[in-house]
Amino acid sequence: MPELDLLEQIAARVKLRPGVAIGIGDDAAVLAGDPAMVATHDLLIEDVHFRASTDFHDLGPKALAVNLSDLAAMGAEPVAALVGLGLPEGRGEVADLYAGMEALAARVGATIAGGDLTAAPCLVIAVTALGRLSRGTAPVCRGGGRPGDWICVTGAVGGAAAGLLALEDPAVGASLAPEAVRRQLRPQPRLAEGRLLREAGAHAMLDVSDGVALDALRLARASGLGAEVDLELLPLGPGVAEVAGRTGRDAQLLAATGGDDYELLVALPAATAIAVAPRLPAGLTRIGRLTGGEPRLRLLRGGREVTPERLGWEHDV
Amino acid sequence: MPELDLLEQIAARVKLRPGVAIGIGDDAAVLAGDPAMVATHDLLIEDVHFRASTDFHDLGPKALAVNLSDLAAMGAEPVAALVGLGLPEGRGEVADLYAGMEALAARVGATIAGGDLTAAPCLVIAVTALGRLSRGTAPVCRGGGRPGDWICVTGAVGGAAAGLLALEDPAVGASLAPEAVRRQLRPQPRLAEGRLLREAGAHAMLDVSDGVALDALRLARASGLGAEVDLELLPLGPGVAEVAGRTGRDAQLLAATGGDDYELLVALPAATAIAVAPRLPAGLTRIGRLTGGEPRLRLLRGGREVTPERLGWEHDV
Repeated sequence: MPELDLLEQIAARVKLRPGVAIGIGDDAAVLAGDPAMVATHDLLIEDVHFRASTDFHDLGPKALAVNLSDLAAMGAEPVAALVGLGLPEGRGEVADLYAGMEALAARVGATIAGGDLTAAPCLVIAVTALGRLSRGTAPVCRGGGRPGDWICVTGAVGGAAAGLLALEDPAVGASLAPEAVRRQLRPQPRLAEGRLLREAGAHAMLDVSDGVALDALRLARASGLGAEVDLELLPLGPGVAEVAGRTGRDAQLLAATGGDDYELLVALPAATAIAVAPRLPAGLTRIGRLTGGEPRLRLLRGGREVTPERLGWEHDV
Repeated sequence: MPELDLLEQIAARVKLRPGVAIGIGDDAAVLAGDPAMVATHDLLIEDVHFRASTDFHDLGPKALAVNLSDLAAMGAEPVAALVGLGLPEGRGEVADLYAGMEALAARVGATIAGGDLTAAPCLVIAVTALGRLSRGTAPVCRGGGRPGDWICVTGAVGGAAAGLLALEDPAVGASLAPEAVRRQLRPQPRLAEGRLLREAGAHAMLDVSDGVALDALRLARASGLGAEVDLELLPLGPGVAEVAGRTGRDAQLLAATGGDDYELLVALPAATAIAVAPRLPAGLTRIGRLTGGEPRLRLLRGGREVTPERLGWEHDV
């Protein structure tokens, strides 16, 4: 059963009780209070989310980064992380996993404050990130988009997918696209961008974990609106064109449907976008707009709709 | 390598940064603020923490209960839980897992507020519980014990270990000790007791997850003190004597070294214990005391030291 349907079933089954402002369905949960606390959890499992061969020095920071990215998407500041580790016998040094994670935590001012450690048949990394909103402010949710909002993305997309191909396809090779490989192995959570976009008054935001197309559809659905994304406007990451060329792929579709970029996808008024863009370290690019009508996504190229085989990266369960 | 040593290595490698009051090493992390937030994470993995045959209706609430128990041990109130679920193909209905978890959440006033859902080669349940302390109060930590404090335990112990034997040893059978089996499958977090013990001024507290003996040693070590626990004072749970008799075990040692009870182990002045005990729904029993000297545990019977084969339930990794 597709992950999205199951999540909707679960969301329908649980009730929001006092003390929680935002529950299942956004990038992170928000606890009531001032400052409001923000909490998110991602489970990474060997051979599902990463190869058994992935170096522990890369795996630790990535597991933390994908959670920090969810905090960024709410416009929150990281405070702490809890790390649950299920470790098969003889599978690398735990110290190597923590070294890179602690370095990233230090860089963003967070504390690895607890967790769990246990034996396991396969490597499991369960990270919970806890953040805080500035006092007196509200988070940016997925469902706040309005008709006519620009859809923008920070930084560049497609790099992580190109990097994965470079790592795995012997016809490509990591040397063709070293920056894309780095993007796949060491994603950078857009914390400063998330905070600035929240302060600027962005209407809706989420992080691009499963591909721009699928995540734009999520934003549109949550906002009860339609969305148009123009493939020709996508800011392609370094190496995307090269890897797409070498593997006979469409570079724009690779960038639209490839996961793991961890950029921020945001809906906001045009004037807001124009005003805030120069202040974002990673930059901001308009890639489409929210429309009225059915909550669906139209991928456009040269004014015509394009229908890819799949919208993005979804782990069926 | 034993879990405790690895945890100490990890704790030595990470740094406490602003915003976090208590990090690795206690039952839960504490985030600075008023009210202070409390966060804990437990990873449960098939064939390590539970059998593949365990009913989803029992597994869901147990996964949540063990985390709530950590909040109880800090004297905190539960607010929310994040649930990460790694699900092998064809392995039961997710709805069954959430049904019991949501029922327990409702009973304690918490919200299942988010999490993650993914495919996995074995069943993984990663629960994070988030709680809150009453405004203006501090948590009860493991290391606050003082020489001469009574060591007390809520409720009764050994039941969960007896229940596991009843479920797994064909020479026993679940019908010999139905209450012990219930204790194993459906532990009850001692939230009211934790709060009352905190309010009464308990010096140190943790929950009994791995056995009274091992957890008393943890409390003693964290407090930098010695501990004496008198096996003859242990309040044995229903079915413990019967199951011990049927399997040729020492009932008191079974109760001292069997895990999964999720009672609270607490160090507090005698007068405080005597005053608060009648108000605790599950009751409170004195089982020993903290002493000066080396941070070690002495298990006593008839005034003589007893040395069991193992102190409790530790998952080596």
